[in-house]
Amino acid sequence: METVPAAITLEELGLAARNHGLPLEALRHPLTPVGLHYLLIHFDIPAVDAASWRLELGGCVSQPLSLGLEQLRARPQRTLAVTLECAGNGRALLEPHVASQPWLTGAVGTAEWTGTPLAPLLEEAGIADQAVEVVFTGLDRGAQGGIVHDYERSIPLDEALRDEVLLAWALNGEPLPPQHGYPLRVIVPGWYGMTHVKWLRAIMLVDEPFHGYQQDVGYRLRQTEDEPGEPVTRMLPRALMVPPGIPDFFTRTRLLQPGSCLLEGRAWSGWAPIDRVEVSVDGGPWRPAELEEPLSSHAWRGWRLRWDATVGEHVLRCRAADAAGNAQPDEPSWNLDGYCNNAPQVVEVAVVDELEQGTV
Amino acid sequence: METVPAAITLEELGLAARNHGLPLEALRHPLTPVGLHYLLIHFDIPAVDAASWRLELGGCVSQPLSLGLEQLRARPQRTLAVTLECAGNGRALLEPHVASQPWLTGAVGTAEWTGTPLAPLLEEAGIADQAVEVVFTGLDRGAQGGIVHDYERSIPLDEALRDEVLLAWALNGEPLPPQHGYPLRVIVPGWYGMTHVKWLRAIMLVDEPFHGYQQDVGYRLRQTEDEPGEPVTRMLPRALMVPPGIPDFFTRTRLLQPGSCLLEGRAWSGWAPIDRVEVSVDGGPWRPAELEEPLSSHAWRGWRLRWDATVGEHVLRCRAADAAGNAQPDEPSWNLDGYCNNAPQVVEVAVVDELEQGTV
Repeated sequence: METVPAAITLEELGLAARNHGLPLEALRHPLTPVGLHYLLIHFDIPAVDAASWRLELGGCVSQPLSLGLEQLRARPQRTLAVTLECAGNGRALLEPHVASQPWLTGAVGTAEWTGTPLAPLLEEAGIADQAVEVVFTGLDRGAQGGIVHDYERSIPLDEALRDEVLLAWALNGEPLPPQHGYPLRVIVPGWYGMTHVKWLRAIMLVDEPFHGYQQDVGYRLRQTEDEPGEPVTRMLPRALMVPPGIPDFFTRTRLLQPGSCLLEGRAWSGWAPIDRVEVSVDGGPWRPAELEEPLSSHAWRGWRLRWDATVGEHVLRCRAADAAGNAQPDEPSWNLDGYCNNAPQVVEVAVVDELEQGTV
Repeated sequence: METVPAAITLEELGLAARNHGLPLEALRHPLTPVGLHYLLIHFDIPAVDAASWRLELGGCVSQPLSLGLEQLRARPQRTLAVTLECAGNGRALLEPHVASQPWLTGAVGTAEWTGTPLAPLLEEAGIADQAVEVVFTGLDRGAQGGIVHDYERSIPLDEALRDEVLLAWALNGEPLPPQHGYPLRVIVPGWYGMTHVKWLRAIMLVDEPFHGYQQDVGYRLRQTEDEPGEPVTRMLPRALMVPPGIPDFFTRTRLLQPGSCLLEGRAWSGWAPIDRVEVSVDGGPWRPAELEEPLSSHAWRGWRLRWDATVGEHVLRCRAADAAGNAQPDEPSWNLDGYCNNAPQVVEVAVVDELEQGTV
């Protein structure tokens, strides 16, 4: 690492030991295997009895619905590859230090989610004219900021009516694992992870903006506690690289032999398709990488670039930009809760001749 | 937490963000779902092409074998529930601080492993009289202690010939996920996790004790770098509890309402069956918990105890002992690399009347 941010406390370690990022070498998988996808669980994984579980859909509708899992699974199905990233990804690299889930860069993953589109269900319930937002409530409950609450987040009604918003019961073709929201979660492609509420128990249409803790206090971009701040919404562009070579166990510094080295990784944005990934070596010019076809219009895109590795220590950086003109900044943009730090990934490598000889 | 150990560095965070423990509420599952089982990956998860992959079995044998995955799968199969724990579990709670993978208490999991017993394969290869140990080599490679090496560990020949030592290709009925050793790993029930070498590429019988880094330097109980130390082998007894109530997001302190509260968890030992689990509240007497039948003779055992929670802050502790007389100590036993800290788990709870009212 180039800078040494403030040390991590035992409380932050408690979060890091539960939640985990994608080990970056797992970027090689177009679809992230279960167990390698990033996880952020605010409270505890709730125990759910699928037989008695029901989804309540109500609020500003003409006909509230109560649905069991089999009823949901009997509806039209859709499977979609979607990249999810935690809004706090990159937080632990910010200065001044922000104390919360201490993410480095790996809070991301891509899975195929199977479920039923939300919009037809809302239409079946009859959307009242005054409905403006849709509130999703999970079975997970705890305290944050001194307030006991169920995890809840809302999205505007027009977002909820997008074709690709799903109520998902499967991940990569299998029932959701407990940690990903069994038996049902919402998938809102393009948005940061906090939106994809897990362990869904209720969906409520409301006639005024929702003011829950995770909406009004959490997930706001603000410089001080006195301002309301702007809400965190869609994922900013980011490219990540599979660190080349082999690691040192403790420092994770990379060791590799000189010669042609394939740098590869994946890039995504929640705003528009990725249309540029670039790599810089040792602060030199940004060179464009070759782009693969995206896995879906809501999933990451592979990239690759050949690098001629010469003996010595090197610093590799990668960055992405999307078709809407969003690009990764050179430096992190600090905010009070450490969201949306999409400064370029930095990978330090030591290129050595004697890698096979047993000592370095 | 009662004490505040030294802060965690960014390098340790790099390990904690990749590897992860069992979220303690997942102790409720007798078999740990994929993605919740603890993970410790020394180097990187290697990319493996199962079609070209072979296992080489050689060294002090009369007939070396080279086996593909289908040949292994055609052999006799056995499925066994086995609890695995990292030898470094509890390291981050030690003082003075030990800098390595910073485990709290959750570096454990139990899965059903399916594979073929190792002993008949060794016998088929013809064990030479001079063979004393069996060395397992993985495809994972990196540097540690300044030495580049493949991950390798040995066990004595008599351990390798135990009926329940398996070459496993499946976890909970599915092919091994990449992070658990795809396509093949060894399972040595009772031993700490470092023994269960993942991504196996070779098994070699040797005529003198193996002196690789992970055997001679890593995984030794020592007070100074100058002494060889005793090798880490089997899992010491440990009981863990599902933290009752609901958590505070950041501190993970537990909140619950007064009244009868079921405390439950699981306990294991690599030396002998668990025959006692006890719970102490606020430093009071140790009360025996009720024990469930173990899942198998190599897996953890469930336990439960009713506690009458009264308003106020409380400290819960649990501890286990096995039938061979091994018991958890009151205090951690410090060593240079932070192995085998099986001091009792401490869970802090705040019992409050107004848990439903929205603020605490």
